[in-house]
Amino acid sequence: MDELLPDERLDYLVDERLKIIQSSSVFSFSLDAVLLARFAWVPIQKGNIIDLCTGNGAVPLLLSSRSKAKMTGVEIQERLSSMAKRSTLLNELEKQITVHTMDIKEAPSVFGHGTFDALTCNPPYFPSSNEQDYNENPHLAIARHEIHCTLEDVIKVSSQLVKQGGKAAFVHRPNRLMEILGFMRQYELEPKRLQLIYPREGSEANMLLIEGMKKGKPDLHILPPLTVYGSDGAYTEQLKQVFYGR
Amino acid sequence: MDELLPDERLDYLVDERLKIIQSSSVFSFSLDAVLLARFAWVPIQKGNIIDLCTGNGAVPLLLSSRSKAKMTGVEIQERLSSMAKRSTLLNELEKQITVHTMDIKEAPSVFGHGTFDALTCNPPYFPSSNEQDYNENPHLAIARHEIHCTLEDVIKVSSQLVKQGGKAAFVHRPNRLMEILGFMRQYELEPKRLQLIYPREGSEANMLLIEGMKKGKPDLHILPPLTVYGSDGAYTEQLKQVFYGR
Repeated sequence: MDELLPDERLDYLVDERLKIIQSSSVFSFSLDAVLLARFAWVPIQKGNIIDLCTGNGAVPLLLSSRSKAKMTGVEIQERLSSMAKRSTLLNELEKQITVHTMDIKEAPSVFGHGTFDALTCNPPYFPSSNEQDYNENPHLAIARHEIHCTLEDVIKVSSQLVKQGGKAAFVHRPNRLMEILGFMRQYELEPKRLQLIYPREGSEANMLLIEGMKKGKPDLHILPPLTVYGSDGAYTEQLKQVFYGR
Repeated sequence: MDELLPDERLDYLVDERLKIIQSSSVFSFSLDAVLLARFAWVPIQKGNIIDLCTGNGAVPLLLSSRSKAKMTGVEIQERLSSMAKRSTLLNELEKQITVHTMDIKEAPSVFGHGTFDALTCNPPYFPSSNEQDYNENPHLAIARHEIHCTLEDVIKVSSQLVKQGGKAAFVHRPNRLMEILGFMRQYELEPKRLQLIYPREGSEANMLLIEGMKKGKPDLHILPPLTVYGSDGAYTEQLKQVFYGR
C-alpha cells in the first residue's frame, strides 16, 4: 500500500516534517495548495474539515500541522486518491485524515448536509469547453479543467457541506472572481476574506484566496497583498514567511 | 464669480499646475479623488467624459491634464458646485469643463442615455441609515453619506449615461465590493479592472478602484496593489509616482 509506483517520487511537503507522494505525469501539488492551506480558517482543537478536489492530499496534510480536527479528503481520480491515502499512511496521519475516492457532487449525500466546520478546495481553474482538454494527459486535464465538476458545482456542494457559520475557502484565478462571488452569494457562502496573490511587484494578480461563511453577514475584508517572487527571481521574504513561518 | 468666500481657501491640486478652491467646513478633495482621476480610462484627443458627485471638481480638473475631451461635472450641492465652477474659471478650463448643479438621477434625462465615452464617480461611501448623518455638518454629511443617492443609484445612472463599450470608474470602500460588483453586473457595467489600495504594508485594503465597461465581456484584471504610506509615515515612492508621475 505504501510503496511507490514506477512514475512516483517521494517529496518533502514544504519542509522536512511532512512527506508527499507525487508524480509529474499524474499530479504534483502547487504553490496554490500551500497558500490555501495557510489561508483557510480551521478549528484548532476539534471539529471536522473537508478538502474537496484534494488531489494527492497536500491540503489536508498541511492542515494537520495547524489543527487537530478530523479531516476528510475527496478526490474523483483513483490514481490521485491512492497517492493521498499512501501519503497519509507515510506521515502516520491515518487517524486524522481519511481520503475518499468520490465525485464531490456525491459528498453531501454521503457525509450529510451541514456536517463540516471548515472546507477547503483547490478546484480545476479552467472551463472545459476547449479542445485543449483532450490533447492533454487525462489526469492533469481532470485536475485542471472543469470536466467532472464546474465552479458552480464546487460552490454549491461546499455550501451544502458546511454548517451554518462554517467557513469555506477556495483558491482560484482572478478572472473567475465575478463568477466566484456570484455563486457564493447564490449559495449563501457570504464572502468574508479575500487575498490577492501577485507573481511579482508591478504585475497583475494571478491567484486569489477567498473565504466565505455559510449564512454569514456581509462584511468583506481584503487582506494585505502577497507577492511571490522578488526582482531576483527568488521567493520574497513575505512568501517565505507564509510558506515556512507557522 | 471667482472670488473666495470667507471660509474658502485656494490650494494647489496635487502640483502647481492646477489650483482648486476648498473649504474645510464644506468640502475638500481627498486622495480618493486623485487616485480615481489617475486610474480611470479616458479618451485622449476627443470625446465626452462625465464626473458624478464631482464635489469641488477635483476629478475633472485633474483629468484635464490627461485628456482633451469635453468634461461635465454634476454636483447636487450648490455650495460645492459653485466652488467647482470658480475653480474651472481660475484654471481657464471653462471651454473644456462644465459643471452642473443637479441630482445625478436627473442626469440621464438631461444629457441623454449612452452619451458619454467615460464616466468617473467618487460617491458617498456610507449608508445613511445611522444617526451620525444628522449630527454632522450637512455639507460633509451629503458628500459622505447616501442621503441623496445610494450606491445603486450611482451605478444605475452611470450605466445609463455611458455608451456601449464606454467605461465607468468608481472609487469606494472594500466592504462595499460585493454590492458594487452585484450592481455593476445588474446594470451591465462589466467589471474589467480592479485595484486595491492599502494604507500601509501589512494592512487590509481601505480603498478600491474599479472600472466597468458597458455591455463588456467578462474579463476582470486585478491590477498591482498600491500602498499609500511607508513605515516612515510618508507617501511611498509608488504612491508619489501615481500622484505626481504622469
